[in-house]
Amino acid sequence: MSPQPAASRFAQLRHIESSRIFQSVVIGIIILSALTIGAKTYELPLLAEQSLSVMDTGITLFFLIEILFRFTACPNKKRFLMDGWNLFDTLVVVGSLVPLDNSEAVLLGRLLRVFRVLRLVSVVPELRFLINSLLKAIPRMGYIALLMFIIFYIYAAMGSMFFASVDEELWGDVAISMLTLFRVATFEDWTDVMYATMEQYPLSWIFYLTFIFLTAFVFLNMMIGAILEVMSEEQNAEEAKQAHNERDEIARQLKDVQEQLSTLSRQISEQSKRY
Amino acid sequence: MSPQPAASRFAQLRHIESSRIFQSVVIGIIILSALTIGAKTYELPLLAEQSLSVMDTGITLFFLIEILFRFTACPNKKRFLMDGWNLFDTLVVVGSLVPLDNSEAVLLGRLLRVFRVLRLVSVVPELRFLINSLLKAIPRMGYIALLMFIIFYIYAAMGSMFFASVDEELWGDVAISMLTLFRVATFEDWTDVMYATMEQYPLSWIFYLTFIFLTAFVFLNMMIGAILEVMSEEQNAEEAKQAHNERDEIARQLKDVQEQLSTLSRQISEQSKRY
Amino acid sequence: MSPQPAASRFAQLRHIESSRIFQSVVIGIIILSALTIGAKTYELPLLAEQSLSVMDTGITLFFLIEILFRFTACPNKKRFLMDGWNLFDTLVVVGSLVPLDNSEAVLLGRLLRVFRVLRLVSVVPELRFLINSLLKAIPRMGYIALLMFIIFYIYAAMGSMFFASVDEELWGDVAISMLTLFRVATFEDWTDVMYATMEQYPLSWIFYLTFIFLTAFVFLNMMIGAILEVMSEEQNAEEAKQAHNERDEIARQLKDVQEQLSTLSRQISEQSKRY
Amino acid sequence: MSPQPAASRFAQLRHIESSRIFQSVVIGIIILSALTIGAKTYELPLLAEQSLSVMDTGITLFFLIEILFRFTACPNKKRFLMDGWNLFDTLVVVGSLVPLDNSEAVLLGRLLRVFRVLRLVSVVPELRFLINSLLKAIPRMGYIALLMFIIFYIYAAMGSMFFASVDEELWGDVAISMLTLFRVATFEDWTDVMYATMEQYPLSWIFYLTFIFLTAFVFLNMMIGAILEVMSEEQNAEEAKQAHNERDEIARQLKDVQEQLSTLSRQISEQSKRY
Repeated sequence: MSPQPAASRFAQLRHIESSRIFQSVVIGIIILSALTIGAKTYELPLLAEQSLSVMDTGITLFFLIEILFRFTACPNKKRFLMDGWNLFDTLVVVGSLVPLDNSEAVLLGRLLRVFRVLRLVSVVPELRFLINSLLKAIPRMGYIALLMFIIFYIYAAMGSMFFASVDEELWGDVAISMLTLFRVATFEDWTDVMYATMEQYPLSWIFYLTFIFLTAFVFLNMMIGAILEVMSEEQNAEEAKQAHNERDEIARQLKDVQEQLSTLSRQISEQSKRY
Repeated sequence: MSPQPAASRFAQLRHIESSRIFQSVVIGIIILSALTIGAKTYELPLLAEQSLSVMDTGITLFFLIEILFRFTACPNKKRFLMDGWNLFDTLVVVGSLVPLDNSEAVLLGRLLRVFRVLRLVSVVPELRFLINSLLKAIPRMGYIALLMFIIFYIYAAMGSMFFASVDEELWGDVAISMLTLFRVATFEDWTDVMYATMEQYPLSWIFYLTFIFLTAFVFLNMMIGAILEVMSEEQNAEEAKQAHNERDEIARQLKDVQEQLSTLSRQISEQSKRY
Repeated sequence: MSPQPAASRFAQLRHIESSRIFQSVVIGIIILSALTIGAKTYELPLLAEQSLSVMDTGITLFFLIEILFRFTACPNKKRFLMDGWNLFDTLVVVGSLVPLDNSEAVLLGRLLRVFRVLRLVSVVPELRFLINSLLKAIPRMGYIALLMFIIFYIYAAMGSMFFASVDEELWGDVAISMLTLFRVATFEDWTDVMYATMEQYPLSWIFYLTFIFLTAFVFLNMMIGAILEVMSEEQNAEEAKQAHNERDEIARQLKDVQEQLSTLSRQISEQSKRY
Repeated sequence: MSPQPAASRFAQLRHIESSRIFQSVVIGIIILSALTIGAKTYELPLLAEQSLSVMDTGITLFFLIEILFRFTACPNKKRFLMDGWNLFDTLVVVGSLVPLDNSEAVLLGRLLRVFRVLRLVSVVPELRFLINSLLKAIPRMGYIALLMFIIFYIYAAMGSMFFASVDEELWGDVAISMLTLFRVATFEDWTDVMYATMEQYPLSWIFYLTFIFLTAFVFLNMMIGAILEVMSEEQNAEEAKQAHNERDEIARQLKDVQEQLSTLSRQISEQSKRY
């Protein structure tokens, strides 16, 4: 029953890890890291550039130590490595260790530094919860997304079949056509696209209008579906619980009544036996 | 009780038809068909074009055999022909058989090949269900659509009455005006349209603003209505079921109580009779 | 008890008025009227123009007779005149009687003819119901609209105070500024407006972003509010009814139990009295 | 028990303050103040300008007297000063007292006069209630806003890293890039931005499409979340109340039954004792 030395050390480390001060320092360093990334996009004097580089090395080291610390503090190493957030943290931090000499690597290194801002999500529990609940919403939209893709593909194939001669830049092949159709779906200068094709095919407004109606209609129904699904889920859970409570209480009262009645019945039969 | 030879053969065919492997092969061929359609929109070397043609013939034959197979496997031929999805499949596949010599027929043949992608919807049950539920949502919007059309028609008539002299291309007649108004409703460069007419009719902003407010207002109410209708439908079904269950259980308990009471009453009256 | 001659004649007229054939003829004539209005926006040969004029006179006469007929068929003349839809019908039809000589009157006459399309709404009951339910939604949005107007007015005053020197056409006075802000609220080339003012006032993006966030936020909350209000209204009505039904049934059963118990009690006391 | 002179005077003042006439006069003056602000944005003849100045002084004096009056009428001075709406009113009115000589002060003075329109919100209770309920909706969106900001920041950092060389005006640094991304998120000429970068980086459409999908997805989920939260809140309150009422009534009836049963039991046991 007494805590073993190792477990106690783990508990101590975990205590430090989950302390407010430790969390605040990590969040502070992540924000500092984000600011240095932002600062680098401005034209800076040489001194500032150099101090940014030094700061960057410091931040990378801090993150490395922090992850090693969290790894040490975790009693279940396997579970630590299985967790998506930890893997993401490790990847981003280890990636930052690659020296920035090679010009190709420089870009990758800078990109990984940008993604360090996402560590904010992995560290602040509320944001982590938010992302998890967003991820849960994705499969719900799977088949709708597939349907949308099919609509886009069919219209893009038709578009590039008919309009490729009108504007090679917009309808050259299926891929470009899908991009153009996405533009039409966001109403971005879609009339320019339409007027251009209408000069050659006067009836091509049918193509655009049916496309807009179809995508808007599918999108609307998807949104309504999403609202309803989440809602009914929540409601069911709540109602089921509430209804259960209510029923339970009344059922209990009724049971009492039934018991009282059996007692009565027994009383009467005893009375009748006595005579 | 023993299965007859014909029925057994049907069952066997149906077993093959509903097997996962058969379904997967059909879906695979449809996707391949979609890819060949997409590939044709790119400029390809002669060899690739020729192999695409061969592949296309192969796909058409496969689809033909598949539909004949499904027709054979279906015990109720009449019901098979009455089903919209089957009719659609047959039309698309038979249409692809038309030889691509005549230049007019080429376009139609290519269009029908594009619609073969839609066979994905008719084959994947989840997409079929989705489409069916979307189709169910249409009548609900019937009168709103009619109202929208009336609003568009009235504004288009007014627009072409007043603004035809300003810009023949945008307000020439009722049909063009409705297209222009649809553009205004999607906020696509609508201020350009407005500024042009405001030069001649300085108060024409009233025309555009009332139109935008009207359509946005009707659309918003339509959306709210759609959400509410679907929701209350679902909820009613659920609640009615749940309420019924609850009531049933308590009513059953109460019935027990009443029966116990009648027994008691009988006991007492018997007791009193005895004396 | 026997119907009086006048009442019987009313009943007869009302019978005709509400008959499907009469309704269909009226709807047909309204659609014909809408088509002639649309046809006039096209360039037509002289003969067609003349036949349209003849048709127009015929339609006007038909509408006049129809309204007189409906007025005669209505037993309560006062209520007929008080009804908004009837007043609207009368105004539109009587207005069409003004001869089209004077050039000023021509425009008014043509406008009134356009509004005759709206008679479709007053004749088809489903559309009438739709419009009535839309009108009911307006007061609900009253104070939100006032708040929106205040936001627009304040930003327009600020806009014309600061940016009038940048672009007189967009920010000349409060009225023009409000139109420009409406354009910004619909995201219509709003960055062009912003980039123009940012050249003189580099921080003016704050003006646009706060405005967009404010209006979008208020609009979103308005929409959510509208959905919730309509929903809770409907739900309450439904739930109250359902809950009442349920409670009633169980309460009735409980009453039966109580009555059975009183009978029992009486039985026992009688039994005890006997001894 | 008898009202003291001071209290009675307070009551009298409060009576005046909350009278409909007083409220209407204040609202009227605020609207007049708004109109003068609007009028000043037009080019006016000298006489009108001068009378506007006189009117402005009058309005400022009226507001000053009104606030002093309300302060006097309030029995709890401390609570008066703690109320945000009163503080806002005082600040706006006192600010208007600054003389409009210095050119810098002129602008500030005019701005404060614009904000006097907001006093309408602080005076009309319905608008005050609306604003309060809008403010309540803000914290609910806090973490979503933070997540949005992180998405914007990461994309802006990437954007200015890659595209700064393409268009310095749009992607020069992180701040400008965020503004450009906001423009993309509102679909405002976003394809122009995309086509420009696609010339140098043909795959940059991935950047825009993922950004649009991410922001739209997060926004959609935020909206759904907001609807659900407000709804479930309202519903819970309602349902809890209703369920309670129902349960209470049936529970009361059941209690009656149980009491009747105990009486019965007592009767029977008494009866049996008697023998």
